[in-house]
Parts: sequence; C-alpha cells; structure tokens
Amino acid sequence: MTEAELDARTLAAAVQARVGMPLHSQLETTLRRLIESGQIAAGAVLPGELELAAQLGVSRHTVRHALGVLTNEGLLRRERGRGTTVVSATPKRIFERSLSSFYAFAWETRARGAQQRSYVLERKVIEADELLAQRLAISAGTEVERIVRLRTADDDPLVFETAYVPHDLAVVLDDTVLERESIYDELERRHGLRITRARESIRPVVLNRPVARLLRSTPGAPAFSVERTTWTDRGPIEWQESIVRGDRYLYSVDLPRQA
Amino acid sequence: MTEAELDARTLAAAVQARVGMPLHSQLETTLRRLIESGQIAAGAVLPGELELAAQLGVSRHTVRHALGVLTNEGLLRRERGRGTTVVSATPKRIFERSLSSFYAFAWETRARGAQQRSYVLERKVIEADELLAQRLAISAGTEVERIVRLRTADDDPLVFETAYVPHDLAVVLDDTVLERESIYDELERRHGLRITRARESIRPVVLNRPVARLLRSTPGAPAFSVERTTWTDRGPIEWQESIVRGDRYLYSVDLPRQA
Repeated sequence: MTEAELDARTLAAAVQARVGMPLHSQLETTLRRLIESGQIAAGAVLPGELELAAQLGVSRHTVRHALGVLTNEGLLRRERGRGTTVVSATPKRIFERSLSSFYAFAWETRARGAQQRSYVLERKVIEADELLAQRLAISAGTEVERIVRLRTADDDPLVFETAYVPHDLAVVLDDTVLERESIYDELERRHGLRITRARESIRPVVLNRPVARLLRSTPGAPAFSVERTTWTDRGPIEWQESIVRGDRYLYSVDLPRQA
Repeated sequence: MTEAELDARTLAAAVQARVGMPLHSQLETTLRRLIESGQIAAGAVLPGELELAAQLGVSRHTVRHALGVLTNEGLLRRERGRGTTVVSATPKRIFERSLSSFYAFAWETRARGAQQRSYVLERKVIEADELLAQRLAISAGTEVERIVRLRTADDDPLVFETAYVPHDLAVVLDDTVLERESIYDELERRHGLRITRARESIRPVVLNRPVARLLRSTPGAPAFSVERTTWTDRGPIEWQESIVRGDRYLYSVDLPRQA
C-alpha cells in the first residue's frame, strides 16, 4: 500500500477483511498492523475522520477513538490543519518481560544488547513511615534512601522508577552504579548478600502529565504500575514503584494447571 | 475525619504528612486512603479545585488530575453545579489474581464465595483467518465459535471476554454452561480432555466507550488487556482476549532468582 493508495476505500477493505474481532477495534488493529509492517509509510496522511467513518460504516467517534489510541502509541501524529500523519513505519521494539523468573531492568536490557542508562532525578534520605517500614521489615523512622530514576535503553525512556533502600545498605551506591549499572549487583557484591526473590503487583494506570513528559509519551496513555519488594535471604532489601511504558512492554506468563 | 471537617486545610495536612512519594500523586493516594478507610464518608462534598490547589501549593491541573483518577476508579463523582462528592466509603473488593498457576474466571469467583454469572453478548460461527488458525493450531478456514461474554461476580461486571473455540468442540457448550458454569470444566467433561496449561500476554489499555459502558466504568479508565491461549495435551483448545477492569484486579507474581 503506497502513500498514493492510502484512501478511505482501501483502508475500509483491509479492515473488513479482518474477521474475528469486535467491530470497534478492527480499525485500530488494522492500522497498527499496516503501519508496523511498513505497508503504510511514515509521512503518509490518513483520510479524514468523516470519510473513514462513512467508508467503514462506523461512527465518527469510533474512528476518532482508534486514531487516538494509535496517536498515544506514537504511531500517528494529529495536527490541526494538517490532519493525521503516520509517524513511523519502523516502530520501537516491544520488550516481552517474562514473569517466570527474577529480572532486573539493567539485566534484561543488557541481555537484549541494548545500552542501559539511568538518570537520577532524586536521591534523598527520608525516614520510613509506617507503610514503608512494614514493606522493608524495618522500624518506622529508620533512614531510607529514596532513589528516583528514569531508565532508558539506547536513549529511549522506558521506566520511571522510585526505589527505597535502607540507608545503611544504600550508602555503597555511587552515581556510576545508579546511572550505568545494577543496584542489585552492587548490593550483592558490597554487602555479601544474595538476592533470592521478588514479589510484584501489577496494575494498569494512565500516565499523568509529568511522567508522560519524562517517558516521552502522552498524558492519558496506558502504562503498567508495578510495585515490587525484593528479598535477600536476610529479608527485604528494596521496595520500588515503577511506571512502565505500556506501548513498549508486555508481560507474559505461563500458567501450569498444577501449581 | 467527619464530613464537617472535610475542608481543604485538613486535607492538605493529611497530604503533606505523607512523605516518600512524588508530589503529584500524594493527593490522589491520600484521598484514596481516606475514602477507602471510611475516614471520609460517602456523600461528603470535597472542597473546590482552586481551594485545594491553594492549600496544597500545587497547580489546579494537579488537583484536577488526582480527582479525575479517583473518579475513574468510582470513588468520586463529579457533577456540574454540585461539585465533587464521595461515592463510596466501602469500596469494591479488589481481586488479586496470582500468576503462579492456572486460573479461570468461574473458578476464582467461586473460590471467593461470589456468584459468577456471564452474559452472552454474541455467539457466532466464523471461519478462522490466518492469525486465529495459527493460534489454535488449525487450518485457516476451519469453523470456530466466537463467544463474547460479559462476566460478573455478584452482579458486578468485571471482565469483557471474547473467546474462540473450534466449532467441533464448542458444539457441546449450551447456554447454561456459558452463563453459569465454566467452559473449561464442560470441555474436559464432554470431550474427555485434560487442560494442561495456558499462556497469557498482559498489556495496559484504556477503556473505550462501548466497553466502559458494559463494565460500568468510565471511558479512558485504565484496564488490562489479556490475551490467552489455553492448551490441552492434544494442543490449543481456546484463544481469548479479555478486557479486565483495572480498578478491580491486580496481578501478583513471585519471581524466584533461579528460574
């Protein structure tokens, strides 16, 4: 499908050929597939909403919703006067994060051959409140370091992470470690610890404006909120809360019938 | 905190006492905690946005964002003229879905002592396209049943599910099974099969208008999109795509250091 052919009728034919999906998501899925496969080139201008709606036999609202989703994903850009243009025919890689064993951002990025880099946005010693104390199995009032980082792979911001580590452990973490390496590796090496497991809770959220800006995404775009406690054989060593770009990660899991 | 005390100054004090979180989410978290714990009663009217913003020393946008999130979660209702009222001091139960072993909606609901009921929105025989055929390990063109259901627990809509089952297997599924029981149990019983495992991919999405209406939620509210393939010892038996309310489910997982 070249740029010249990108008319509403052609798109409608592609959409209607896709059986087996609820009507309202067919346009979205078809467009995503055409853009990601390069069948619609970057820079191509989509037909107008009204024209698409008429050809597809759906409401203008349905069309607008589908285009909005793809805009949030960064595949389309909508500009007043110029209409809707295709941003990229070579979309970003999606990281499949398997929930079957322990992982860490630095490790998974390295394993994929990407350059990981973290930007330290805040590093502060605070006193643990009741909830944080409970999570880290320490007494309320104990000093804890809050380390807020924007984590990137090949300069691409993927995760906004706020980690809490007891201060007496965190003192060994210098800027090089926080920016270029793995906290876990350093805590193990410097304290002679062994990290044994982590437990995560995963929820869907929408990005607010400040975090969207940091992640170079759009306010309102879907994301994962991941809360995690990481344990050593001596007890919890870290509690963290991450916002993970929803268009760049998917979580996969195998569910055996026998636990 | 009684209704009479629900002024901006009191809220501001509660918010500022919560150390250890980015500023922009403190109001949201505090309000959620106060509402969920019953410290703010249902029916209470919140102070105006401008007043809250001034007392908290944040922008009106930050206040509006926090109230919007809680409105999406169903904890607040915003009405023109009436302002922002607290909807419920006894929020709905959150289902924690453990990703460590096989689960099914009917089973997990039953295990929690809730009454599960599914509403069949569509049941149609279609021919598998290439992608669906690949997912079900059948030939393209094979007849498959598409079964679209809204799944509820104690009349509370939680999951919008679209399942695809090869037609020759699905013929044993009658309305009673689809509405009141578990497809898996019936397929095992009627075909002498043993379901062995499932594989899921989980993404965050925002609800569009039609699905939001079905789930009695709000367009734009965060949700999980879960794609799942379920296998027997003879091969895949079902592929499904579910939209799961993000305010009612959280996924939890244990990550052992050794795979």
